[in-house]
Amino acid sequence: MPDIIEPRVLKGFRDSLPDSEMLRNEMTRSLESAFRSFGFVPIDTPVLEYADILLGKSGGETEKQIYRFKDNGGRDVAMRFDLTIPFARFMAEHLSELYLPFRRYHIAKAWRGENTQRGRYREFYQCDFDIVGIDSISADLEIAELIASSMTALGVEAFTIKINHRGIFNRFLERIGASSSSIEVLRTVDRLDKVGADETRTSLGAIVGETAGDIIDYIAAGPSFSETLDKMERLAGGHEADTDRMRRFNDFALESGLARKVKLDPSIMRGHDYYTGIVYETYLDAIPEIGQICGGGRYNDLASLYTKQCLPGVGASIGLDRLIAGLEALGTSRAKSPSCAVLILNLEDESCGKYHTMAAAFRSAGVSAEVFPEKKKIGAQFAYAERKGIPFGLVFGAEERAKGRIVVKDLASRESVDYATMEEAALAVGARLRG
Amino acid sequence: MPDIIEPRVLKGFRDSLPDSEMLRNEMTRSLESAFRSFGFVPIDTPVLEYADILLGKSGGETEKQIYRFKDNGGRDVAMRFDLTIPFARFMAEHLSELYLPFRRYHIAKAWRGENTQRGRYREFYQCDFDIVGIDSISADLEIAELIASSMTALGVEAFTIKINHRGIFNRFLERIGASSSSIEVLRTVDRLDKVGADETRTSLGAIVGETAGDIIDYIAAGPSFSETLDKMERLAGGHEADTDRMRRFNDFALESGLARKVKLDPSIMRGHDYYTGIVYETYLDAIPEIGQICGGGRYNDLASLYTKQCLPGVGASIGLDRLIAGLEALGTSRAKSPSCAVLILNLEDESCGKYHTMAAAFRSAGVSAEVFPEKKKIGAQFAYAERKGIPFGLVFGAEERAKGRIVVKDLASRESVDYATMEEAALAVGARLRG
Repeated sequence: MPDIIEPRVLKGFRDSLPDSEMLRNEMTRSLESAFRSFGFVPIDTPVLEYADILLGKSGGETEKQIYRFKDNGGRDVAMRFDLTIPFARFMAEHLSELYLPFRRYHIAKAWRGENTQRGRYREFYQCDFDIVGIDSISADLEIAELIASSMTALGVEAFTIKINHRGIFNRFLERIGASSSSIEVLRTVDRLDKVGADETRTSLGAIVGETAGDIIDYIAAGPSFSETLDKMERLAGGHEADTDRMRRFNDFALESGLARKVKLDPSIMRGHDYYTGIVYETYLDAIPEIGQICGGGRYNDLASLYTKQCLPGVGASIGLDRLIAGLEALGTSRAKSPSCAVLILNLEDESCGKYHTMAAAFRSAGVSAEVFPEKKKIGAQFAYAERKGIPFGLVFGAEERAKGRIVVKDLASRESVDYATMEEAALAVGARLRG
Repeated sequence: MPDIIEPRVLKGFRDSLPDSEMLRNEMTRSLESAFRSFGFVPIDTPVLEYADILLGKSGGETEKQIYRFKDNGGRDVAMRFDLTIPFARFMAEHLSELYLPFRRYHIAKAWRGENTQRGRYREFYQCDFDIVGIDSISADLEIAELIASSMTALGVEAFTIKINHRGIFNRFLERIGASSSSIEVLRTVDRLDKVGADETRTSLGAIVGETAGDIIDYIAAGPSFSETLDKMERLAGGHEADTDRMRRFNDFALESGLARKVKLDPSIMRGHDYYTGIVYETYLDAIPEIGQICGGGRYNDLASLYTKQCLPGVGASIGLDRLIAGLEALGTSRAKSPSCAVLILNLEDESCGKYHTMAAAFRSAGVSAEVFPEKKKIGAQFAYAERKGIPFGLVFGAEERAKGRIVVKDLASRESVDYATMEEAALAVGARLRG
């Protein structure tokens, strides 16, 4: 007989136990309903791809973190490290089978061999949604609306979508002669919330010298959307299509009611250099310090590495793990449905067929039910129900059979109610579960 | 500017386009509802694991097919090739955090570098459900009931769950002196449907000699459950706990109504040698030739490689890809919900806010809706709707605004109906979609 192999998972990887998996499933279903209500459709792509496809436009940092190897056929392959690059490849490959504008969502795992000391996991979920093949205010507005609907679907009411426009900022940088340092500048501004205004000013000074003060002026939000936009426009050199677009965005957002959830914040940058228009970052109002939980923006061309057809688009990505952590901090992170609603207690072997028939009657009424699968001391069966979080027990033994009654016990209060038929019992439990 | 990288996926891998992904999502939701209604809870495990964990009890064949490599930290890792071994490791690792009996389901991808010429894919879905920590008739019955409920949830009404008992068969092999060849015998019998009775008899003869005829007798199903069981019992050497268990299984199945869907077939073997009790194979009545779409059985000990605690269990696995192929063959494989229900036609730029408000009104009534995100020729917008399979269009331009009416167009029949308010329009479309 062989020794026992120690059961363990790789560093940076996790099992998902039932409570967390039920919660994640409920959240995913809610998000999918929101996406589908906007006409977004799901796609999926392989976990493994040719390494040259995935690494096309990535720098050395990504290459060091990626899970890359030779398969049994000698192919240079890698596990996807995000859902954006596979989506770009997907669009280029299937353009003739699809239609534009194409609205898609994709909720799936990705992998990076990151340093786990920063609390990051090497296997994580991504949740992306984009509209590609279109460059319009309507699409920009729709992504913000869908962010808001996603939050509402998850039961989050207090959140703020901060937006900005990278095109206006780039115009401003050009005017102050800082275009050549734009990447460093935007990454420095991006850390404003983490490091504070003083350190940001110092860092900016080291990059752009005296004009750091202009940047600090630019990135300060004003008292209202229009006052902030007026200031941005003035500092960027005046009226252009980009500021007109943001002004109309605000008009439409006011009309549709979205404006309540949106704040124009010129310090919002997003780290990636491929954004060219509107950018979004979403924060929980009660705990903004955990960072943004849904971000994205508009880009010029999604799939230029794989096709000559230009595909402008706009989209965002929800950080599911951070959002779950946020909901935990807010105390709203438990799955709404119990793991099972009713445990049919097993009191006598010969009633097995009867117990299974009773369980089926609950299920027909939309109430989940399980039979304790062997006769065991009733205390052990109650302990199991408590451990699994099952709220109701059905008691049917010799006594109940003699009386012709079905007894349902509330396992928290220990109160019992008895019913003449299974249909009555199932309806009553269903009503109690719904509240 | 770099050359274009040819967009392509690895051999044996596939993208899932919206139509197939919507169908797969609907099927997964239906299965999850069935599983949850029986008190089965979801879990998840990492895609990557230590290779020694995954390969513990596997032979050379598996090792050749597996995706295995050294990660950046030099660890010997592999991608899971099924969901059974990760589940065994999971149970051993988390036993103290769980409860027994533990009912779990797991729907996720696995990977094998199989020969793709047999029509197999290297990335595929598995859908497993098991009850562990229990050895009882009730649990055996429950798995068969859950197979039946899963099929019903998927809209499949005409199916048969063939069952057998490996313990009785082993007893029979012992009686005829063929125990030492049991693996070869059961794999030969397993191919009966594919190769026919004559070739099976010849193959068995080569393995066990003259007793091949006894095996052929044993594996023939009789006219009824009880007559088949009586014959098996006689050939296996008489009454024992195993035959008693099957007899009581049948009694309970008759009582709960499951018996209509179950057939005792002594030729059902399942390839794996770890089954020790009841085994199941499920076939579509209209097209049994595509093979079984859900199989499983009872095993003695799930996790003996990783823990000394004995965990008997029973479970089954649905072959989602084969089932989808089967539903396609039966012509019932389209997703039930359209990709989007209503397209709000974009007729004038300045109505953007109004269009988005209208879309929100549909969504509030539970009807999915999208705004065509720019003003474009109306023919192009209709063509888009047709391509995406959107059944209704909402027309609201200068004329409709002047009249104060909202016009909904059925895009298949081209008929229009007009409404005074968005609420009326949304309710009417919702009713049409449901009916």
